Amino acid sequence: MVGVDFGTLSGRAVVVRVSDGAELGSAVHEYAERVIEHTLPGTGVRLGPDWALQSPRDWLDVLRVAVPGALAAAGVAAEDVIGIGTDFTACTVLPTTADGTPLCFETPEQPHAWPKLWKHHAAQPHADRINELAARRGESWLPRYGGKISSEWEFAKALQVLEEAPEVYARAERWIEAADWIVWQLSGVESRNICTAGYKGVFQDGSYPSEDFLAALDPGFSGFAGKLATGVVGDDVGGVTLAPLGGLAGVLTARAAGWTGLPEGIAVAVGNVDAHVTAAAADAVRPGQMVAIMGTSTCHIMPSDRLAEVPGMCGVVRDGIVPGLWGYEAGQSAVGDIFAWYVDTFGTDGHERLTELAERQAVGAHGLVALDWFGGNRSVLVDHDLSGVIVGQTLATRPEDVYRALIESTAYGARMIVETFEKSGVPVEEFVVAGGLLKNRFLMQVYADVLRRPLSVIGSDQGPALGSAVHAAVAAGAYPGIEEAAAAMGKRTRAAYVPDEARADAYDRLYAQYRDLHDHFGDGRMLHTLRAIRNEAVK
Amino acid sequence: MVGVDFGTLSGRAVVVRVSDGAELGSAVHEYAERVIEHTLPGTGVRLGPDWALQSPRDWLDVLRVAVPGALAAAGVAAEDVIGIGTDFTACTVLPTTADGTPLCFETPEQPHAWPKLWKHHAAQPHADRINELAARRGESWLPRYGGKISSEWEFAKALQVLEEAPEVYARAERWIEAADWIVWQLSGVESRNICTAGYKGVFQDGSYPSEDFLAALDPGFSGFAGKLATGVVGDDVGGVTLAPLGGLAGVLTARAAGWTGLPEGIAVAVGNVDAHVTAAAADAVRPGQMVAIMGTSTCHIMPSDRLAEVPGMCGVVRDGIVPGLWGYEAGQSAVGDIFAWYVDTFGTDGHERLTELAERQAVGAHGLVALDWFGGNRSVLVDHDLSGVIVGQTLATRPEDVYRALIESTAYGARMIVETFEKSGVPVEEFVVAGGLLKNRFLMQVYADVLRRPLSVIGSDQGPALGSAVHAAVAAGAYPGIEEAAAAMGKRTRAAYVPDEARADAYDRLYAQYRDLHDHFGDGRMLHTLRAIRNEAVK
Repeated sequence: MVGVDFGTLSGRAVVVRVSDGAELGSAVHEYAERVIEHTLPGTGVRLGPDWALQSPRDWLDVLRVAVPGALAAAGVAAEDVIGIGTDFTACTVLPTTADGTPLCFETPEQPHAWPKLWKHHAAQPHADRINELAARRGESWLPRYGGKISSEWEFAKALQVLEEAPEVYARAERWIEAADWIVWQLSGVESRNICTAGYKGVFQDGSYPSEDFLAALDPGFSGFAGKLATGVVGDDVGGVTLAPLGGLAGVLTARAAGWTGLPEGIAVAVGNVDAHVTAAAADAVRPGQMVAIMGTSTCHIMPSDRLAEVPGMCGVVRDGIVPGLWGYEAGQSAVGDIFAWYVDTFGTDGHERLTELAERQAVGAHGLVALDWFGGNRSVLVDHDLSGVIVGQTLATRPEDVYRALIESTAYGARMIVETFEKSGVPVEEFVVAGGLLKNRFLMQVYADVLRRPLSVIGSDQGPALGSAVHAAVAAGAYPGIEEAAAAMGKRTRAAYVPDEARADAYDRLYAQYRDLHDHFGDGRMLHTLRAIRNEAVK
Repeated sequence: MVGVDFGTLSGRAVVVRVSDGAELGSAVHEYAERVIEHTLPGTGVRLGPDWALQSPRDWLDVLRVAVPGALAAAGVAAEDVIGIGTDFTACTVLPTTADGTPLCFETPEQPHAWPKLWKHHAAQPHADRINELAARRGESWLPRYGGKISSEWEFAKALQVLEEAPEVYARAERWIEAADWIVWQLSGVESRNICTAGYKGVFQDGSYPSEDFLAALDPGFSGFAGKLATGVVGDDVGGVTLAPLGGLAGVLTARAAGWTGLPEGIAVAVGNVDAHVTAAAADAVRPGQMVAIMGTSTCHIMPSDRLAEVPGMCGVVRDGIVPGLWGYEAGQSAVGDIFAWYVDTFGTDGHERLTELAERQAVGAHGLVALDWFGGNRSVLVDHDLSGVIVGQTLATRPEDVYRALIESTAYGARMIVETFEKSGVPVEEFVVAGGLLKNRFLMQVYADVLRRPLSVIGSDQGPALGSAVHAAVAAGAYPGIEEAAAAMGKRTRAAYVPDEARADAYDRLYAQYRDLHDHFGDGRMLHTLRAIRNEAVK
């Protein structure tokens, strides 16, 4: 089984044994164009601020390079592979023709013809208009996204194309997630997976936002859903065909077999998102299992059997993680990014040394508490214009004190999210950690102590690719469903970190201070004023 | 004329021309024992935490070394010198016999026999008891000190001696400020200057705290004022003889002439405090001239013709800066110390480079506001258990952004003090800067912009020693009073820095945020909790 994870800077393929999830070999291919932020490749056309594009050729190169590389590394014969599954960053979305040809292959000099990477943030004004109108009209889908959709998502980005490059918008017969586009390339079949349709395409209760709503945004936008709702594989949901997670999208075409070296005709799984598919890799797809993928930022993914409106969540989507359950998503805008910023900016000791020094301290010995809003607050306040606060420094404060306080602040942020879910009637039964920050054992222990609960950890450092392989195993029929496949192939160590009662008690007192700061600064009165002053000053 | 400034680490002598205050030559002598914080010299007896002592021999060595050195540097003949004036750190205080012999000369193995330097902070419990009792009894002197006396002052330090070393207390026939002790050594005459008696000895409205009050603190303490009220030079104030500033304490003894190389019989001025005497050096001794001596911390000194209870001031003393006026003192616990802490702790660029980078920014471009309480807050909150707060950091915040925000925070703190004086009915007519931070022109401009007023600056980088020389000129009869002498010999440039209207407007908006933070954190609810948690954690 082959799983392929398309990340922000590279793609990774992993060869996984179907019976037990053993990772037999892997290979990484770095994208030649990485993230296109300033000028278009080839033509040198300049981009505006906050733009972020990618090249579909880089994605195809992952199939050509990393997949054969992983097979070779694994020492596995191609004919032993029975399926391939993929996951992608999201919302990474592109305009194509009806046969799936990216428009940027035809007009590479046109910025809007290129795929917009998830972190393309130039559509914020469009997202603001969508949110404002939806709130005014009381659109029923809005509370499913904590009250606000993101500028990163499909509708905001498409509205930007329509208004800034109407000719590109007109030529775009399809507006498709890269997660689905890559599956199309592998299988020759166009599909739309339920996960991105729900989390990024605002598909709720059987429909996209109404034509009426879209026309009110811009008359030319009214038929936009027609560019989306064109899947041909899967189930009919209110007239739209969406492909279930773990489903079979199609089989490998001869052309894709040529790229990958895999046998023609093997199963190609329905597309998925890197964060969401990690739940399968961690064998954490049952109600109440919250998977925190902790890296530069943190994404929280949790299936549940209950629907609730959780304040500040990123989204809740029926069947969005596994079929049959509601899938919740929440997030922290910056986590590892904060620690990296601190070390890089202040030229202190590196992470290892700071961790070593911080670890020796008793809880609270630094006298500090911080708000982890250095990249804004995604959940539970959904406010990117908030900023960080550090309280309690004295002339005796040392670099490791601040470092520890920053680590703790992100743990308090995580606790705030968990408590908000529980208060909203969505129980969190188990907290499962995946992602790059796992390697910092001290940080993990802080989270266990602050959350006052044991932490489970994923047993793989290539969670998304492993999760894609799990999905592929289901698509290939090796297991009856994701839950069974995850149980056999996923890897999770329960209670890898256990809270210490005394430390947890001490953290309760500090968390109470964090909550006070959260309440005081959360209204944005001061932080928005500071940002407004800043924005005027740098104009 | 010779002025001698006894600082924390060294003493400096300056030879000054009487006619115009020209500084003809100076010399510095570093104390051999500097600050005695851990073990006693010679005996190696260990000291407790927060102790800080000095050696009287170091002070005498300044007379032996720095005074002749300054004369030599100036190329001035000793017989042309007509007087000597001195100033000292305060409250630096010592127990002596009736003839002025320091008890530490007799029992050097006894810690409490040594002079306690101003920053000896081990008498905090004693100060707390004094404040608690004074507040409970409604002692009339308490509001003259903003509602709290300091653990650094005479009564707290003496009470510590009484209770921890009663035999030393019993042997101490005198409890005397070093400012007065050095004058005694020079002139052979014991005097008590009005300045330290008022600011450090809690002498108000003609008396020290009552026997009754002292007995309530500790029965053995009731007669304490008898160890203080023994000046023989000056005016009778309610039965206590205090020496006026600028007065003649006596004339140079043969012994002191031998130490200094100065002529026997010349005028010796009444002692004074380094900060207060600087007002004379800056020719800023008229009502409403606030002198800010800005260094590691900032001390604000201002004469006024009005008596008011200014919240959080350090003290108001009749004749405490110049005869005939009320002398006000306020302070900021840490100023230069904050910038030094930041650069030393985080290993960023040095002060010059950070200043250069910070200076390029428009006001508010960093998006930050900070509370300057890294060393607690002396005025206007009088709370040493407060700590620093930095608000508004993002992943784009750079070291120079924080540096600038820290500089600005101290300017906001200064504005808070100025505004508090004015709201209390004590007008601040002119803001005059002295001290080491003068050399940072950018910082000065920030203060002018934040305060929205022109800054005057002192024209000497050895302000206290020059001020002592001014006082000596008065004592020697060269001028009828301090005001006249300061006008001739003091050096002040008016409006050296002028506020920029646009920047001042921008700072008004940021200062409003500072005030909000001041209000929110000033009650100490969160900051005291963090400190209490810290203190328990490090126990």
